[in-house]
Amino acid sequence: MLSRCLPLAVLAAVLLFATPSQAQQPAPRARVVMQVSDNDPAKWNLALNNAKNVQADLGAANVDIEIVAYGPGINMLKADSVVAGRVGDALGAGVAVVACENTMHAQKLAKDDMLPKVGYVGAGVVELMQKQQQGWAYIRP
Amino acid sequence: MLSRCLPLAVLAAVLLFATPSQAQQPAPRARVVMQVSDNDPAKWNLALNNAKNVQADLGAANVDIEIVAYGPGINMLKADSVVAGRVGDALGAGVAVVACENTMHAQKLAKDDMLPKVGYVGAGVVELMQKQQQGWAYIRP
Amino acid sequence: MLSRCLPLAVLAAVLLFATPSQAQQPAPRARVVMQVSDNDPAKWNLALNNAKNVQADLGAANVDIEIVAYGPGINMLKADSVVAGRVGDALGAGVAVVACENTMHAQKLAKDDMLPKVGYVGAGVVELMQKQQQGWAYIRP
Repeated sequence: MLSRCLPLAVLAAVLLFATPSQAQQPAPRARVVMQVSDNDPAKWNLALNNAKNVQADLGAANVDIEIVAYGPGINMLKADSVVAGRVGDALGAGVAVVACENTMHAQKLAKDDMLPKVGYVGAGVVELMQKQQQGWAYIRP
Repeated sequence: MLSRCLPLAVLAAVLLFATPSQAQQPAPRARVVMQVSDNDPAKWNLALNNAKNVQADLGAANVDIEIVAYGPGINMLKADSVVAGRVGDALGAGVAVVACENTMHAQKLAKDDMLPKVGYVGAGVVELMQKQQQGWAYIRP
Repeated sequence: MLSRCLPLAVLAAVLLFATPSQAQQPAPRARVVMQVSDNDPAKWNLALNNAKNVQADLGAANVDIEIVAYGPGINMLKADSVVAGRVGDALGAGVAVVACENTMHAQKLAKDDMLPKVGYVGAGVVELMQKQQQGWAYIRP
């Protein structure tokens, strides 16, 4: 009687071995979080250059990029930042740029003190961890 | 006759699409290794701040944190470290803090030269690699 | 009639729970990309030390190592690099060492300006992203 079920067995096996865990996996979507934790405009420019190069190389539509500024790096996103123009350009190009609210609280910074249109996360370091554990690559310029 | 096996086919399909590889995966446990490889107390404090913020944000019971000191960063864990008190606090809060034995050997440091209760790994850089390949996030403050 | 198919159901379940996604997975091959993006010979030496220590600890045959130099780090791989000898040693030991062509273009560097035998990638930062998303660990010395 087993033979009656054989087609199903074959189907089950085919489905099974077609699961991503065993078969050739398609390349995951390109996704990268970039850490900005230095109070150093050279690093800020490097992060912005990196984001731009990644979009140029892969096509902006084909990659998710998020720049996370925290700790001493928070100054990158203050309203008077020396890279304000470039941050605006990155946001306009579809790069997510987020500030750490923990750091802002410690430095008594309100959203009004920050560049317009940046995003916010509760804890920059947790954001960097979680994105990695969700499969994003990590770059620390 | 296939119809007789249809319930099984449905069962198989349900099981199949419930496998973590295809279905919505549960979030992995939050785990992070932090690299300390600079001889710079500002970086040591940043790593310790990061660990503290991660525990505050996620709850200490919900995250595994390991700080790995190696190369020029080994000084963070010497008995006379300027952050000795904070390292003790981190250990007490459940953060693993480990020193690289390769670096200690190169610098002629024995365990007696190091802070009490820190852990040891053979090669700090290998520890950082292996943890990542086991699914831990990586932060380089 | 279900009972006729029970052996198949057992088989399906066994196959299912034997998939890598659920069963104990074998440790992945040790693979690491190292980022060199600072114009700082101390960092270059640290990256080279790290590569050497990883090979010593795991066995050179058991690990894939790639050092990616880009941005201000590109100087590590110029023909007149102060670590030219050590880069040659690393290449001879099976470490891949690659230069970012985007950076070379921006700095008007040709392959003739670079150390012999180094490899090339279009965009260093994309290389670092893609390797991570393919399961390689990431180290930023």
